[in-house]
Amino acid sequence: MNTRMICRVLGWILLILAGLLLLPLLVGLIYREPVLHFLITAALAAAAGFLLTRIRPRTTAIYAREGFVIVGLGWILMSLLGALPFVLGGSIPHYIDALFETASGLSTTGATILTDVEALPRADMFWRLFTHWIGGMGVLVFLMAVLPMSGDHSMHIMRAEVPGPTVGKLVPRAKKTATILYLIYIGLTLLETVFLLCGGMSFYEALLHAFSTAGTGGFSTNGASIGGFDSLYIEMVVAVFMCLFGVNFNLYYLLLIRRWRDALKNEELHWYLGIIAASVLLLALGIQKLFGGFAVALRHAFFNTAAIISTTGFGTVDFTAWPEYCKWILVLLMFCGGCAGSTGGGLKLSRLMILGKSMGVSLKQMARPRSVTRVQMDGRRVEDGTVRAASLFFAFYMALLLLFSLLVSLDGCDLATSFTAALSCLSNIGPGMTRVIGPAGNFAFFSGRTKLLLSLAMLLGRLEFYPIFVLLSPRTWKK
Amino acid sequence: MNTRMICRVLGWILLILAGLLLLPLLVGLIYREPVLHFLITAALAAAAGFLLTRIRPRTTAIYAREGFVIVGLGWILMSLLGALPFVLGGSIPHYIDALFETASGLSTTGATILTDVEALPRADMFWRLFTHWIGGMGVLVFLMAVLPMSGDHSMHIMRAEVPGPTVGKLVPRAKKTATILYLIYIGLTLLETVFLLCGGMSFYEALLHAFSTAGTGGFSTNGASIGGFDSLYIEMVVAVFMCLFGVNFNLYYLLLIRRWRDALKNEELHWYLGIIAASVLLLALGIQKLFGGFAVALRHAFFNTAAIISTTGFGTVDFTAWPEYCKWILVLLMFCGGCAGSTGGGLKLSRLMILGKSMGVSLKQMARPRSVTRVQMDGRRVEDGTVRAASLFFAFYMALLLLFSLLVSLDGCDLATSFTAALSCLSNIGPGMTRVIGPAGNFAFFSGRTKLLLSLAMLLGRLEFYPIFVLLSPRTWKK
Repeated sequence: MNTRMICRVLGWILLILAGLLLLPLLVGLIYREPVLHFLITAALAAAAGFLLTRIRPRTTAIYAREGFVIVGLGWILMSLLGALPFVLGGSIPHYIDALFETASGLSTTGATILTDVEALPRADMFWRLFTHWIGGMGVLVFLMAVLPMSGDHSMHIMRAEVPGPTVGKLVPRAKKTATILYLIYIGLTLLETVFLLCGGMSFYEALLHAFSTAGTGGFSTNGASIGGFDSLYIEMVVAVFMCLFGVNFNLYYLLLIRRWRDALKNEELHWYLGIIAASVLLLALGIQKLFGGFAVALRHAFFNTAAIISTTGFGTVDFTAWPEYCKWILVLLMFCGGCAGSTGGGLKLSRLMILGKSMGVSLKQMARPRSVTRVQMDGRRVEDGTVRAASLFFAFYMALLLLFSLLVSLDGCDLATSFTAALSCLSNIGPGMTRVIGPAGNFAFFSGRTKLLLSLAMLLGRLEFYPIFVLLSPRTWKK
Repeated sequence: MNTRMICRVLGWILLILAGLLLLPLLVGLIYREPVLHFLITAALAAAAGFLLTRIRPRTTAIYAREGFVIVGLGWILMSLLGALPFVLGGSIPHYIDALFETASGLSTTGATILTDVEALPRADMFWRLFTHWIGGMGVLVFLMAVLPMSGDHSMHIMRAEVPGPTVGKLVPRAKKTATILYLIYIGLTLLETVFLLCGGMSFYEALLHAFSTAGTGGFSTNGASIGGFDSLYIEMVVAVFMCLFGVNFNLYYLLLIRRWRDALKNEELHWYLGIIAASVLLLALGIQKLFGGFAVALRHAFFNTAAIISTTGFGTVDFTAWPEYCKWILVLLMFCGGCAGSTGGGLKLSRLMILGKSMGVSLKQMARPRSVTRVQMDGRRVEDGTVRAASLFFAFYMALLLLFSLLVSLDGCDLATSFTAALSCLSNIGPGMTRVIGPAGNFAFFSGRTKLLLSLAMLLGRLEFYPIFVLLSPRTWKK
């Protein structure tokens, strides 16, 4: 294990964090709010980062294991330090609450422990929503885009941070791939900001909600989330952008280099759009009585389908009051999540497709034992290793879901609350499926122990388990 | 596809069913009850069976596909016909209710739609609990034990009916394996009957509860299940036998041929006992306040752990009133189920062990990429195909669980009810985890559509999906 190199990269992460903390500081200065808490945290991060980057590694070689350790430790460090301003500034007095809120931000979950969101100072609010944007594409992808690292090694970091069953390079060099991903990310964020400005939001609100949408997070400056703006236009803009950020970013690159056909032929995209269309229709039929008309029902069905499948979790209405089968449709979407290589969470559609296809293949072989069929995606054969990895990921996901449900239930909440709280955190969505933790509720009532557990679940979900597992495995640290 | 041979074997199944129906007829005669409904059904089954066995196949060859079709069709036929006496005799007036009760019986689930169990005539009650015993070991295993079929071919049928990731022959000949399994099954059933007689049960009650325990079913002659007998001795006898019937029957064979060491070294057995011990302890700690003492808590914890992990589902107390985390422990046990090659349902412990071990191996390889580790069970390497099959089974199980939960929720019941109703039926347990469908409730309030769906779920669970899937696949029937 190349411990020195790990320390060095962690140092870079802290330096970037220090830089990022200057943004809310700036916002505080603009709005004439106290900013000392951001200054102190930034100084701490900078000092620690400076010391760590002084460590000279014997070799810069980084392999898969080092990649996992860097990503796991990096994200935990960012959560621990990122929570400090809330405590130092007093906007979230208890450190565990602040840690939950920051982990929820960075992991792009969007579950909150705040009971009065709007009481937050503007600088703190900026930092809260900005963590979504940082976490969405990932700070290490950013690092790779700006730092001079050799491509082969940085690919291991990228694999550990970017979600999905396979991570492809858009261009031969990993550094350039990271840059392209970030440029698309920034471009789409700015585009949404402009659209939201046209809907009458202030620049501050528009930018912050664009951050939150881009990372598929779900925090809002408004206590009633997007529903609080009471605007069909804003709802539709946000809903469309939620869908867009749930799409594999590679497709946007293909569009940019004018390979339209390749982008539009993508099988995962077809399934994504098909599932959205089917859910919207089924939900609209289920809730039309509730809203006194199919048109209004369609509006809410579309917004909430987009919010859940993209794992953003913005709210307009309290869907925990919807008919039971509508809630189950949303629960199924919670498992599903966005496309691979998007900022969305969950199991990822392509993983479910690989699983579904290999289930289909096994059935075909049972009915016709002599037929030879292989799992295929986008016209190409999926390797056995990828199929195996998808099955194992699914098994880990279910095992963690049940384990966290059990642990959350120690707080005494009912089966549906503990189950959907664990599901929502593990899939990085935000709201759960019962009233207390639904769009109209929050996670404040959980015990400190449960908040810590759910913070861990959120990070596990965002990093797709392995970085945290490798970090916790004693074998990693054996000589 | 050897359709003629399939018809012929189905004919044998119907003849056996006709023979089995003579037993409740006999019980009716003894207790001087009307028995015409059993006579009519037996005559119907015998006539249809006789006609089908007249079909002369060109070849007696049976392959995997034919095995699945025979088992799938055979079980559906038995459920459809086995439900008739309840309707004809008037004890369950609606056919769908009777079908649910029979599917629940044969699949050894034990979920009931009866609101007044004790009102059933004795002959009908005998048939109801006897279906558990038939379904536990399987009618086709019985067929193989008594019919002169060539060993290679009948093995395909056995694989399709006996649960677990792998089916081993105890002895070179499949026919003899089937005979040994049935002899052990009969022996243990009689042993339990004797023990229950000693506890003060009548012979009728003792035999019927032994049937129910042996099949890990859960129907009782008593409306309050085993709790209705209010006897510590009876509870402990039943609890111990529930545990025994959840063990791989191969181990009893090893004990019989005095290979004690091989039987006791079995890894799955260790895990089974370990999980039971851990659950009993955790549950007892959780419910001791409820029962005013650790000793009483231990009694209920042991009985209910045994009832759920063996997937029998007998009841003594209403565990839906237990603390939430205790309910989650029971839910986890519902997923788990008994050992492979037992009469218990669920995912089966050995399958979970294979999955868990391959998860462990993948983590080891991530921390130490150059290390080579393989999945091992009982000191031998588990083949890749077995690991893949276990992962796929798990995926099918979860997909069906979520699908059935959604479909059940169309009746308007809450998340926890629809989820645990689907889970309980798919794992062949019986009670669910909310009050209405818990040990003190029943499945009567569900709509006809949901009862049909849950009947399908119970058969899917008992036959471990593939026979029903192959039956429903259009590819099976293509030329």
